[in-house]
Formats: sequence, structure tokens, C-alpha cells
Amino acid sequence: MLKIVLLGTGNLAVHLFDALATNKFATVIQVFGRNKEALSYFQDRTDITDSKDNIRDADLYICAVSDDAIKAVSQYPRHKEAIILHCSGAVPLTALPGDCKRGVFYPLQTFSKGRSIDFTKVPICVEAENNEVLEVLLALGKSISETCVAIDSDQRKALHLAAVFANNFTNHLFERAAAICADNKLPFNLLKPLIEETVAKLDTLSPLEAQTGPARRGDQYTQEKHLNLMTDLRDREIYRILSQAIEEKYGNQL
Amino acid sequence: MLKIVLLGTGNLAVHLFDALATNKFATVIQVFGRNKEALSYFQDRTDITDSKDNIRDADLYICAVSDDAIKAVSQYPRHKEAIILHCSGAVPLTALPGDCKRGVFYPLQTFSKGRSIDFTKVPICVEAENNEVLEVLLALGKSISETCVAIDSDQRKALHLAAVFANNFTNHLFERAAAICADNKLPFNLLKPLIEETVAKLDTLSPLEAQTGPARRGDQYTQEKHLNLMTDLRDREIYRILSQAIEEKYGNQL
Repeated sequence: MLKIVLLGTGNLAVHLFDALATNKFATVIQVFGRNKEALSYFQDRTDITDSKDNIRDADLYICAVSDDAIKAVSQYPRHKEAIILHCSGAVPLTALPGDCKRGVFYPLQTFSKGRSIDFTKVPICVEAENNEVLEVLLALGKSISETCVAIDSDQRKALHLAAVFANNFTNHLFERAAAICADNKLPFNLLKPLIEETVAKLDTLSPLEAQTGPARRGDQYTQEKHLNLMTDLRDREIYRILSQAIEEKYGNQL
Repeated sequence: MLKIVLLGTGNLAVHLFDALATNKFATVIQVFGRNKEALSYFQDRTDITDSKDNIRDADLYICAVSDDAIKAVSQYPRHKEAIILHCSGAVPLTALPGDCKRGVFYPLQTFSKGRSIDFTKVPICVEAENNEVLEVLLALGKSISETCVAIDSDQRKALHLAAVFANNFTNHLFERAAAICADNKLPFNLLKPLIEETVAKLDTLSPLEAQTGPARRGDQYTQEKHLNLMTDLRDREIYRILSQAIEEKYGNQL
């Protein structure tokens, strides 16, 4: 049984802990965190500590902390024969201490408080400096998820960027759509089936094939009418840039 | 039984025809279209014609044609006591002939060839010049969908614009994410669970609450790294504008 100490008590730590609860390959022997309230979530189910001096020896340490805390927190474990991992898409492996067996365990998902996630469906992208560590990470990943793949640092950076387009920016467009609805006394729920079908389409069509709309068909008249409807300058700018990008893509540029 | 003639043979006409196939309130007595091949889809199930002179008298005509064909095609029926509808989010009701009972029947969904749509889940937004027509449209809408609401012209324009943000632009971001994956030899499928959760979150959080990512937390360092990763100037522009919009929204602007 692989003994794990989880460093961190945020959303990701909670989701990871829950995913590992019934794991046959690994067990979380301790959770470390500064925030006593957040730490209390784990107290009945494993050992907890808020002191870095009390971090136990383990086979593997997982830094499930925010990007800017990884460097500091990963220094805390003193058991240098162990593997140490962070879970970030954006932080280099070399942010971890050089005298440890370093690796990255990047679950490609958005974790929110209070939303349960089926971890078996979360792709886990792993990275390590040598095959021995990589094998452990692949085994750990496959013990909690159906999809665990080895990627390199450049691929991880690209994947994190792609995730910003696919999740963060997409969500902002939903927010703007919701704002337009609210301004016109329309329930945002009217758009939900459309949004769901936008995503469901990706099962049978590539997004390149699935594109529709005024910019796709080079319909300048409708685009002008839409631009005139918007009073928010930022919305107009987003509309213009994305429409231009779509027109260029499909060769509709005037 | 409301007798309907369907004008048009494209994706929407096919989906509407199928949705009306077992309807107890209305029946499609004829489909008119210029494209004989497209018309053949309907031939075993109702009367068809490719000649405007053979369009039959009906209670209601539905122009399920492209926006720029609505004005011309809606002139074809000669039975002026009938109700005539178009299905566009972007075209004014007044594009229909003034000597008819005019209305709009706007199904808020994206229709693609070969993808079956559960019409009972498609919100239908109706609009008419008088209550008599509106009642017929609401009854027709409710006979095929769980959600049928009366909206006015300004609301329909706004809804169409919101749909461009929620569907067209979102899909383009998926396309850019897929391109970034392809450039880095990563399968786009890795992003699917993230995309699905982005949408599933909207059931419990507003998009305003659901926002995450570097721009949301004002993380300039990660944003700079992302910008440096992109070689496509259009992608960089999209990244900048959307990040700025998110930063402004959450008060993180430097």
C-alpha cells in the first residue's frame, strides 16, 4: 500500500482525498494544512496536522495547494526518499525540491466547493523525471481514473492553455449571455438546452465542423445588427474579435 | 387539427417535421421546397411540391428557410386568411407579408444534419401581432415542447445575440482548444470532461459564480506565460480581450 501525505486542504485536496478513500493501491495517512477549519473536514478519516514539523514519513507527498504556494509547501516534508508531486497545470516540475523524486499529477478538471466530481472520469496527466517515478504515478492515476496519460512539460503547458480556452473563457461567454438575458428580462434557462447541445455535438462533430452562426456564413448584416444592440464596449470588442476569427477560419473575410 | 404547410427542406424543416409527425394538435399537409433531393426526405410521409403555384391552402404556413430567403418565400402562399410564421431569431416579424396574420416561431437550438434533437426540450419563443395568433402559436409550441414562451421583438433580438455568445463563440473557443491540443499531439478528448463540467456547473452556480482561472484570480504571471506560448496572433488577441474582460468583471485589473 502506497502511503500518501496530502499537503493542502482546498477544493482539490478534498476531491483527491475522497477519490482515494476506497483506493486499494494507496492510502492517505495524513493531511497537512494551515487552515484548521478546512483541516477539520479530514479529522475523522485520517491523521491531520497543522504543523510542518509533524508531517509524517510517507512514500509519496501530494502538494494540492495553489500555484504560488507549491514552492514553499513542497519543502516541508523531510523524508527525501519519497516521491513529491504537485497537481498544477501551469507550474514547472522544477518548482519542487531538487533533492526529491519529483513528479506532476495534473487532474484536468475544474473543482468547485460543494460540487461532487466523479474522479474516474477525470483525465490525469502525469509527468516525472525518470521511469521509476512515472510508473508509480501512472499506477496511482489509473487506480482512481479511467484515463491517466504520461505527458511532457511542454504538453502540460499547452493543455493548461487549452483548458483556459475551453473552460475559463467559455464560462465568461456564458456569463455575458446571462447578462444579456438579464438586461432583457429573459431567464438564462432558455439558453441551457442550446449550451448543452453545443457540447453534446462534440461527440459526433469536431468543433471545426460544428461551427454555425452569422460569422460562419459571412452574414455581415446580422453581425452589424448585433453590434448595434450592445452598449457594453467590452462585449462589442469580444463580439468583433471572435466573429473576425471565425470569418477568417472559414474564408469569409470580406 | 391545424393544417400546416412547411416551406423549406433544410435542417430546421426536417427537425420540425419530425417533431410534428405524431402531433395531435397540428398536421403537416405539405412540404414545399426547391431542392428536389432534400424534398425527397418527406415524400413518403406527406404531400410535397417544388412549385410555388402548387402550395396548398392551410391554416398555418411555416417558413423554415434561411434568413435571407424569408421575405421572398413568405410571399408564395396565396391563402391570405392563414397565419404565416418564420423561425428566425434575427429577422423582424415585418419581413413577412403585411396582408397576412404574421408571427414568429423561434426554436432556440442549433440544428445540424444527422443529429437528432429532442424537440420537447427545445425552448420555443413565439411572437405575434395579436392575441388570437399568439394563442395559436403558444398552443402549437406547447404541443411539441415543454417550454414555449411569448417574447417581444426586442427580447428575440437580444436572445439571438445571447445565443451567438453561448453557442457560436463558445464553439469557436472549443475549436481553438482543439487546435492547441493538435499542435501538441494531445487528444482533444482529454478536455471533454472539463467542458462537460463547465456546463454541468451551471445547474448549481451562475456563470458569474462559476468563473475560475488565471484572469479570475488576477494571476498576471500565468497569463504572461500563456501569451508567450501562442504563436497565432488571433489566439493571443482572443486571450487578451477575454482575460481583460474577466479581470475587469472581478475587479482584478492592475
